[in-house]
Amino acid sequence: MSEIILHNYFRSSTSYRVRIALAMKGLKYDYVAHHLRHGEHRGEGYLAVNPQGLVPALIWTDGTMIAQSLAIIEFLDEMAPQPPLLPADPHGRARVRMLSQMIACDIHPVNNLRILSALRSRYGADDAESADWFRHWVNETFQPLEKILSLSPQTGKFCHGDQPTMADLCLVAQIANNARFNVDMAPYPVISRIRNACMEIPAFVEAAPQHQPDAE
Amino acid sequence: MSEIILHNYFRSSTSYRVRIALAMKGLKYDYVAHHLRHGEHRGEGYLAVNPQGLVPALIWTDGTMIAQSLAIIEFLDEMAPQPPLLPADPHGRARVRMLSQMIACDIHPVNNLRILSALRSRYGADDAESADWFRHWVNETFQPLEKILSLSPQTGKFCHGDQPTMADLCLVAQIANNARFNVDMAPYPVISRIRNACMEIPAFVEAAPQHQPDAE
Repeated sequence: MSEIILHNYFRSSTSYRVRIALAMKGLKYDYVAHHLRHGEHRGEGYLAVNPQGLVPALIWTDGTMIAQSLAIIEFLDEMAPQPPLLPADPHGRARVRMLSQMIACDIHPVNNLRILSALRSRYGADDAESADWFRHWVNETFQPLEKILSLSPQTGKFCHGDQPTMADLCLVAQIANNARFNVDMAPYPVISRIRNACMEIPAFVEAAPQHQPDAE
Repeated sequence: MSEIILHNYFRSSTSYRVRIALAMKGLKYDYVAHHLRHGEHRGEGYLAVNPQGLVPALIWTDGTMIAQSLAIIEFLDEMAPQPPLLPADPHGRARVRMLSQMIACDIHPVNNLRILSALRSRYGADDAESADWFRHWVNETFQPLEKILSLSPQTGKFCHGDQPTMADLCLVAQIANNARFNVDMAPYPVISRIRNACMEIPAFVEAAPQHQPDAE
């Protein structure tokens, strides 16, 4: 059995989600940084680890490689169940997965670095246009997310009840990204309240981009 | 207890994933069509059901609404476990979720209708450019997916072993979309072989876009 390894990048919000999960579960790991803007994740060495060349990728203690942040978080939750990051009941799990995927499928992929780079190279989108694109897709999903969280009696101190779940990991990591593109959070009081509650938990703070070894 | 309702659209690949799951489990449901190109999913009636205004959305027999296709499939797998769409072991589940999310996070969201429409309205992308964008992001993920499936001893008749899983649902639905944009499948022999194996299963055929009541 070897050490857990996390291939990641301080600013990557999908990496941030996984770092929070590892910190909440008290799992120590070897932090391997890949500088996305320098293309370090596209080198042959890393492609031999994760053929997709994206971060994060987890190497478990038995050598198994798992990519895709939500797959990693569910795996960690199964291998190290305390504290749980998914509710015990199927309906609760479905709601947490739905909230997580609203961010993980409908916001992050269309706003990540490779898409913003493609908009620049294909259409000459400058920084202001990239930021407008970013904010547009955040707002498209944060509006219904705020509504769902506001209306549902299942929302508690956190997205689902009074213990943080996978949905909160996605929410906090997304909001960290939002700050870099000046997303106005005023229309999202419930989302903001939940984010503030998360940031009182040491695991969320420790895992934040600015506290990583490769932070700039 | 009421009937299961699936809000969907024949051509939506995320809807197609869920239809396969329902068919495999032998669950009957009320098919409610929303014509995406006519904006029917943005009407007030549907927004009261799913504030995100996207398809698919499942209404379970107790009235619970679940959006996001992978959350729906995992819920169905928990409520109607036979045949299972996820492996019994945590490592297997992690691999199936990873393969599913490679498609569900890294291909579909950046290529769906709302993004192609935004490229048109913001940058004047015509049909040829949209198709090139679509193919680019499919290939970016299908190349490593083909590699992972080719190299892993866990790949069987299907993406994971010899029974179809959630990963196969995502794969088949993506390939149905690919056909509309003339994606060359020649570089993907393992993916193609798995797709063909799936299409011998009646549930995959029944759930196909062309067999839905709103098919054009």
